[in-house]
Amino acid sequence: MVNQRADVGWQSSKSDSSGVSNSGESSKESSRCSTPVQDADRTDRLRDKMKRRIESGDHWFSLEFFPPRTASGAVNLISRFDRMGSGGPLFIDVTWHPAGDPGSDKETSSMMIASTAVNYCGLESVLHLTCCNQTKEKITAHLNKAKRLGLKNIMALRGDPIGEDWVEEDGGFNYATDLVKHIRCECDDYFDICVAGYPTGHPEAESYDEDLRHLKEKVDAGAHFIVTQLFFRAETFLKFVKDCRAIGITCPILPGIFPIQGYHSLRQLVKLSKLEVPEEIMQVIEPIKDNDAAIRSYGIQQAVEMCKVLLASGEVPGLHFYTLNREVATIEVLRQLGLWAEDPRRPLPWAVSAHPKRKVEDVRPIFWASRPKSYIYRTQDWDDFPNGRWGNSSSPAFGELTDYYLFYLKSKSPKEALLQMWGEELMNEESVYEVFTNYITGQTNPSGHKVMCLPWNDDPLAPETNLLKDELEKVNCRGVLTINSQPNINGKPSSDPIVGWGPAGGYVFQKAYLEFFTSSENVTALLQVLKKYEPRVNYHIVNVQGKNITNAHEMQPNAVTWGIFPGREIIQPTVVDPVSFMYWKDEAFALWIEQWAKLYEDESPSRMIIQYIHDNYFLINLVDNDFPLDSCLWQVIEDMFTLLDSPPETQEEGSQS
Amino acid sequence: MVNQRADVGWQSSKSDSSGVSNSGESSKESSRCSTPVQDADRTDRLRDKMKRRIESGDHWFSLEFFPPRTASGAVNLISRFDRMGSGGPLFIDVTWHPAGDPGSDKETSSMMIASTAVNYCGLESVLHLTCCNQTKEKITAHLNKAKRLGLKNIMALRGDPIGEDWVEEDGGFNYATDLVKHIRCECDDYFDICVAGYPTGHPEAESYDEDLRHLKEKVDAGAHFIVTQLFFRAETFLKFVKDCRAIGITCPILPGIFPIQGYHSLRQLVKLSKLEVPEEIMQVIEPIKDNDAAIRSYGIQQAVEMCKVLLASGEVPGLHFYTLNREVATIEVLRQLGLWAEDPRRPLPWAVSAHPKRKVEDVRPIFWASRPKSYIYRTQDWDDFPNGRWGNSSSPAFGELTDYYLFYLKSKSPKEALLQMWGEELMNEESVYEVFTNYITGQTNPSGHKVMCLPWNDDPLAPETNLLKDELEKVNCRGVLTINSQPNINGKPSSDPIVGWGPAGGYVFQKAYLEFFTSSENVTALLQVLKKYEPRVNYHIVNVQGKNITNAHEMQPNAVTWGIFPGREIIQPTVVDPVSFMYWKDEAFALWIEQWAKLYEDESPSRMIIQYIHDNYFLINLVDNDFPLDSCLWQVIEDMFTLLDSPPETQEEGSQS
Repeated sequence: MVNQRADVGWQSSKSDSSGVSNSGESSKESSRCSTPVQDADRTDRLRDKMKRRIESGDHWFSLEFFPPRTASGAVNLISRFDRMGSGGPLFIDVTWHPAGDPGSDKETSSMMIASTAVNYCGLESVLHLTCCNQTKEKITAHLNKAKRLGLKNIMALRGDPIGEDWVEEDGGFNYATDLVKHIRCECDDYFDICVAGYPTGHPEAESYDEDLRHLKEKVDAGAHFIVTQLFFRAETFLKFVKDCRAIGITCPILPGIFPIQGYHSLRQLVKLSKLEVPEEIMQVIEPIKDNDAAIRSYGIQQAVEMCKVLLASGEVPGLHFYTLNREVATIEVLRQLGLWAEDPRRPLPWAVSAHPKRKVEDVRPIFWASRPKSYIYRTQDWDDFPNGRWGNSSSPAFGELTDYYLFYLKSKSPKEALLQMWGEELMNEESVYEVFTNYITGQTNPSGHKVMCLPWNDDPLAPETNLLKDELEKVNCRGVLTINSQPNINGKPSSDPIVGWGPAGGYVFQKAYLEFFTSSENVTALLQVLKKYEPRVNYHIVNVQGKNITNAHEMQPNAVTWGIFPGREIIQPTVVDPVSFMYWKDEAFALWIEQWAKLYEDESPSRMIIQYIHDNYFLINLVDNDFPLDSCLWQVIEDMFTLLDSPPETQEEGSQS
Repeated sequence: MVNQRADVGWQSSKSDSSGVSNSGESSKESSRCSTPVQDADRTDRLRDKMKRRIESGDHWFSLEFFPPRTASGAVNLISRFDRMGSGGPLFIDVTWHPAGDPGSDKETSSMMIASTAVNYCGLESVLHLTCCNQTKEKITAHLNKAKRLGLKNIMALRGDPIGEDWVEEDGGFNYATDLVKHIRCECDDYFDICVAGYPTGHPEAESYDEDLRHLKEKVDAGAHFIVTQLFFRAETFLKFVKDCRAIGITCPILPGIFPIQGYHSLRQLVKLSKLEVPEEIMQVIEPIKDNDAAIRSYGIQQAVEMCKVLLASGEVPGLHFYTLNREVATIEVLRQLGLWAEDPRRPLPWAVSAHPKRKVEDVRPIFWASRPKSYIYRTQDWDDFPNGRWGNSSSPAFGELTDYYLFYLKSKSPKEALLQMWGEELMNEESVYEVFTNYITGQTNPSGHKVMCLPWNDDPLAPETNLLKDELEKVNCRGVLTINSQPNINGKPSSDPIVGWGPAGGYVFQKAYLEFFTSSENVTALLQVLKKYEPRVNYHIVNVQGKNITNAHEMQPNAVTWGIFPGREIIQPTVVDPVSFMYWKDEAFALWIEQWAKLYEDESPSRMIIQYIHDNYFLINLVDNDFPLDSCLWQVIEDMFTLLDSPPETQEEGSQS
């Protein structure tokens, strides 16, 4: 799919690149028809992924985020997950702050952010959990909720005592070890558990050795890997690893990397974590403390140098980044280290959800290509993916169309920006055509603004997916309002940077697809024209009332994206499914009103124009089945315009031919 | 698959060509991933197939056979089913002779022959059943057995009374009507029921009109269509149809066609059926009564002329042929009428079974390509096709390897013929290589006989599938004993006469496949060579003890034949499945002993040579995953020979490269 696709949906974030590039393990998750995996849970665990990457010498990275303070901050963080996920982190983790109601259902809670990362962004995620001053019941409730939401990994921390007068309780949660034990006791082996290590010793520990012993206890209690506090010198960490190994800690130990991003943030962090910044670093940054750019640049260079030493040591399988919810510095460090996946290989054309229940999902309708989060939300109650293998006589039971109230589906643009893009005042239907056309071309509209999104596409047209731009412009300005399309592909290598996906050595294919809104007058001509394209072109034409015209089988899905790979069955991840199209049509029409019409006053001419389109236009999808030939779909539209432009008597003839 | 495939397995017999060529109904049966059909049973019935063909004006034909007297006659009849099935009959029917123990489990019983036609030949079949002198219990037992065996259609007949002293019984089966009623009463709507019509009136009926009324009663009792007794003049039948319609018989009425094939058979038939041969026919054949060829030729011409009149009348949707178990005349008549499917479109690359339980089957392992009956037999207890969708952790539970005892799997050649083909006396392993090579080339062996079959291939190499002959010859004479192969195909039209299958407008694909036996010395070199072809080539190498060497996933099947069609999901009907390969290997190795070694005396040198091969050779399959490129499999074998021919030190180097 190349048109108007949000990057989110297309450039799959991939949290474990090893699954794709080597041993074929990802196959288990990506082939609809594939072998049910005997013991999927075992090989799908974070600890197993680490084990495989360590064995193959394939370094990884992970990213730490903290929950945002506001709902709009949450929307932005989710976008950042999508962007940073595309670089291929092995996992991300979300911190836990007891004062912020972290286990609640609020948009900004740690629980909700981590759940969104797993379910909607497809990221392997680690949820932090602190136990200090908590009851066992409360902790168990958090664990059960995490489990329910599809979270599989916990970072077990003591957390800072609230108030000064904290004293150890007998049988309470005094140390992270108690939490680790509790998790193993309550949830057996369900969660992968991470614990914190302190390369210079925990500030409250009696001694470095005493702290090491505590760490050993945490691991012995059942932790699977260690992430360390940040540090500034590679040798600090390497000594720490050596000391850990010496006392019998054998699990992976991941260094916490903090690229210095500013003078003040560094000072604050150092103060909070009771760390000391080495003299040689202070000497460099003190003189440039007011030059943010210079400090950032130094911070990147310093982190890169240190990471190189760490990786070269052979003691470091992966790097853990304290991102402070920023992306530039971390991505730059990862790029320079060669760890950032510039062209992340996608296991499937869409982002695979990391929820354990969904990991067998390997086919989706094409309609939600730009709204994958909505699709995931509306199908979250399914037991099976696809539900009833598409088109079972019982309908797939999509969830209610309330998704536009969900924070992770909110437009990132405020109302004012949307009005600037889509028009403070619409004159007629043609004004709407112009908005679509400007979105395609990237040109500014009369008021001088670029149209960066549409209700059906929250991101600008991806630059590398502009293959169809000229054709799209031509038809949109005449009222064929495209919202989704893909070109035909006849066997490109699975490694193709634009259209490739799936394991190495395979070939991917697509049937050309085009989806658009257009007026009922156009539909009349289109139907006339489509007769000439039988049976090459399949179509579904529907209006908001559900009037449905099609030449396709009423239940049979049409596979429009598939891949052939060495040693496995065919994978067909994208289909045009007649049944789910009826659900999508409700959503697609509703977006006219919910996201566009409601920007304007009730009864205003602008609002009535959008309402008119909503009430009278049709939503059409076209598939060109003859994938080895050049797509005929543009010719279909061209023929429709030609018929519309011809004198009435010619049209009559046309209808008889 | 083109090599050494028995025609049976490859040139699918197709009993309902309408299902492939038009409305797309066959899709329901042929896509593994396709929509489960809501009401498959309803549209899959013979009556529904007739209805569709009548509506589309698509004339059909059907073929009547009688059960053979001997087991070898049964083997020949089954081969004839396969051959005549490929012409596209809508159904075949098998007659019922109470004196011949027709409901028994004997190889020659009507029940077993009809069951074989359905289950192993994939033919829609109608089982005759007569009720005269039968108890209700006996009839019900027959019906239940027929149901169990997958039979769905019954031709309900009174049958000839046994003995002279038959009298009507009160409440007994006095007429076919009673049988129709009984079937409907016992089995509700399960069976499609056919009854017999007599264009000149039943010989025992009081009058023509009386007989018509009886026919009306049979139809009213629940029959779905009528097949008539043979006749010699088109107008006889057309008047009969008119008279039937006049008294309210509305169901299809199929004329029984009898191409005259000899003077004596005609006289006998006429005597038995109490018919009169018209004067104009007797005048022609009396003078040539000793010239069989002339009579056959006349019979064909006469039948063609009559059928043309019948079809042109618009009253005849299909023709029913009394074949007398011969094929030449009927096929010739059908050819001249244009009803014989010269290039039958195959819904799948292999013959789809007509058993209702198997109709959803849409994928099979490639290994049984030449032994589809064995595959069907060994999987007959499966509830699902494939069982557990391949590679479920529970093994597919293939039936025991006793299939070579089954009559429909017996070699059509007697022991003497096999010895002539495969050698009265084998000198060494090379003698065996020669047998394989002669099978490939079609040349005569030293004793002057052609090798028409091998234990793994009961039919000669199909002439149109000789694409790989040169390569096959070259490798077989050096001890790479091929038993199955297919070339790569990169998107040929589904209508391709050689490799095409499935609905119109699609494209079919194949990965190159090669399967062979070879010595352990060759395997050592082959493994060396295969390293160069990673990951392009997947292999499984196994000996009779089950020593198994592979670079493929242990559970994941590799799709090697697939098709892309308009408006539907991908169909992938042939796979190389690691699990079922282990079952196939037992069968493939056993055939060395059961079919070949046992031709020779115990302890004889010939027998020991075959036994040696059985004990020491490996069975290998190779898949070239890179289907768009020319197959590299021949190069792999070539490289193996080169390595074997090179001096030992070079081999050493090879192993280190």
